[in-house]
Amino acid sequence: MSTQAHIFQSTQPLNLKSGATLASFELAYETYGTLNAAGTNAIWVCHALTGSAHVAAHQHTTEKGWWEAMVGPGLAIDTNTYFVVCSTLLGSCKGSTGPTHTNPETGTPYGLDFPVLTIEDCVHAQKQLCDQLHISRLAAVVGPSMGGMQALQWAISYPEMLQKCVVIASSACLSPQALAFGMVGRNAIVSDSRFNDGNYADDVPRTGLGIARMIGHITYLSQNSIQQKFGRKLQDKSTYGYEHSADFQVESYLNYQGDKFVDQFDANSYLYLSKMLSYFDLANEYGSLEAAFEQCKASFLFVSISSDWLYPTTQSKEMVRACMKRNKQVSFCEVQSDYGHDAFLIEPEPFAAVIAPFLRNVVS
Amino acid sequence: MSTQAHIFQSTQPLNLKSGATLASFELAYETYGTLNAAGTNAIWVCHALTGSAHVAAHQHTTEKGWWEAMVGPGLAIDTNTYFVVCSTLLGSCKGSTGPTHTNPETGTPYGLDFPVLTIEDCVHAQKQLCDQLHISRLAAVVGPSMGGMQALQWAISYPEMLQKCVVIASSACLSPQALAFGMVGRNAIVSDSRFNDGNYADDVPRTGLGIARMIGHITYLSQNSIQQKFGRKLQDKSTYGYEHSADFQVESYLNYQGDKFVDQFDANSYLYLSKMLSYFDLANEYGSLEAAFEQCKASFLFVSISSDWLYPTTQSKEMVRACMKRNKQVSFCEVQSDYGHDAFLIEPEPFAAVIAPFLRNVVS
Repeated sequence: MSTQAHIFQSTQPLNLKSGATLASFELAYETYGTLNAAGTNAIWVCHALTGSAHVAAHQHTTEKGWWEAMVGPGLAIDTNTYFVVCSTLLGSCKGSTGPTHTNPETGTPYGLDFPVLTIEDCVHAQKQLCDQLHISRLAAVVGPSMGGMQALQWAISYPEMLQKCVVIASSACLSPQALAFGMVGRNAIVSDSRFNDGNYADDVPRTGLGIARMIGHITYLSQNSIQQKFGRKLQDKSTYGYEHSADFQVESYLNYQGDKFVDQFDANSYLYLSKMLSYFDLANEYGSLEAAFEQCKASFLFVSISSDWLYPTTQSKEMVRACMKRNKQVSFCEVQSDYGHDAFLIEPEPFAAVIAPFLRNVVS
Repeated sequence: MSTQAHIFQSTQPLNLKSGATLASFELAYETYGTLNAAGTNAIWVCHALTGSAHVAAHQHTTEKGWWEAMVGPGLAIDTNTYFVVCSTLLGSCKGSTGPTHTNPETGTPYGLDFPVLTIEDCVHAQKQLCDQLHISRLAAVVGPSMGGMQALQWAISYPEMLQKCVVIASSACLSPQALAFGMVGRNAIVSDSRFNDGNYADDVPRTGLGIARMIGHITYLSQNSIQQKFGRKLQDKSTYGYEHSADFQVESYLNYQGDKFVDQFDANSYLYLSKMLSYFDLANEYGSLEAAFEQCKASFLFVSISSDWLYPTTQSKEMVRACMKRNKQVSFCEVQSDYGHDAFLIEPEPFAAVIAPFLRNVVS
């Protein structure tokens, strides 16, 4: 398996949905496996909100990939057979162009001068990289959560480009409840006294970003998984402290998750990616969900999670129904798991068990 | 109907669960109707997290009571028949002693020097007021949400004192998920740069308190009610703004709710009441849920809400089962409503329809 971490330099300006133009951009990406001569054995993997190009184990780092159990030699997304590509989203802080990068027009970091992006913008950027890699046709695009939205957009924007589309724990738009949680997180960031309109340099808005992460984290877990993992167990004591510090393990855990995240992620990037999530809405964009799928040529696999209340099964089923009404090839599976939305990361096995056969023998 | 707003001055020190003692305290309260000579026709109504003594319409203010459709002449809690009392929780900022009040030992506001309280502490304080009012026996204690926890504690701490106990959309303890959301809200308050260890005077921690409220507000609504009320409708525009301001109506609504709340509620009080909620845990306190109900003599009515995910029906059913195992008189009803936890405020009619017959002819 050849494994590399690369930076792609855009080949042309990116005209954005907002009307703005990104004159040039970079995408961090990694590849695994070998592209065949025809350029037809590639699988594009799309990451979720806080993920990165680093999806699987590779030589250039000991850092764990975000989906190592899914992508690798002999795994469901088999790098012995497929040339796997994963790039970091535009707007993210993990290598691709985003608000932490230098604005060529000013010589200072973009901050909030970075243009607001959409999933569609990001997919068009990925397409430039795809062309540069001499991929003539994608065997599949696969994505969980926000990555599923990118997979959907690939199937819609470039219908000739992909054979299969795998959409995991995702939806055609955020539910209003998910919108609301996202908004509170962004609100916590921009109203942090350190935020300073996005010009915070090293004095980052830790509080706001930590709160956004904690809210997100709760929504990624199911009631049952929090119950089973923590219940109401106390932290390092046998009785309540009767003070204003944390008493329960779940409190310490969330504090830890918030703190850890702040050290790894940029607040401005979080704003852009969260906004991008909120804007994705296929029915609104194309008139109806059925109309959105009208031109698609890929066969679809939708996988939902029984305990996922952020991207509930009903949202996957709506997409399945829309595909069926337009006579698309579509498969659907609800994975039974207690882990909530994060199940695709926590127990990837049942997802692999559905994805592997769906991807088998794509390249004829 | 006689209607008054009063302040009760404690008759004895309050020994708190924490081991601390509150040497004296005040409770704001209101009464409706007339106590009979035997002192047996009183109904004690307990409010939820951000409520107050002002439960129903009365002469001393034009402000709307928080449960006007439930309490009044001819209503389910009928003030023609019953002498209704509602007092503001200790720790709250709505008239009763709490962190905004002057600490007699220092002459300055308590702030975080106010002792951490429990539901049980608050019920013992209410009992002092109950005695002072010459109520010999309560026909019933009724409470929704956090008020239901007080009603439960009344039935447990003073089994001889009440005939009936009505527990609405409540639980014997917060679920770990509810604990987690509460913790993030408190975290937002204490990490607000204006919080200043609770000594914020007029420069209140608006951001943190607003975020706590917004998180709470989302949890009080069901997925369906947010969908029906807002869906993904845009605010004052036909397309996305591609900026970092609010785009969706649900965002503006939450911002408004957060702002409004900050003008009405004290951040320290919110901390105390939220902590109090998190500490309530009957099974932990009494060894088991069944053991908690062991000594109770009241007959119980539990009412849950089908779409309430913060205090789900399963939690009410657990209490019902525990009561039945100890041969307590117990009734249960799940109100079918799409409004989520707040249904008891938004559409009180189905609750009134269950509560009214349960309370009929209590006083023999």
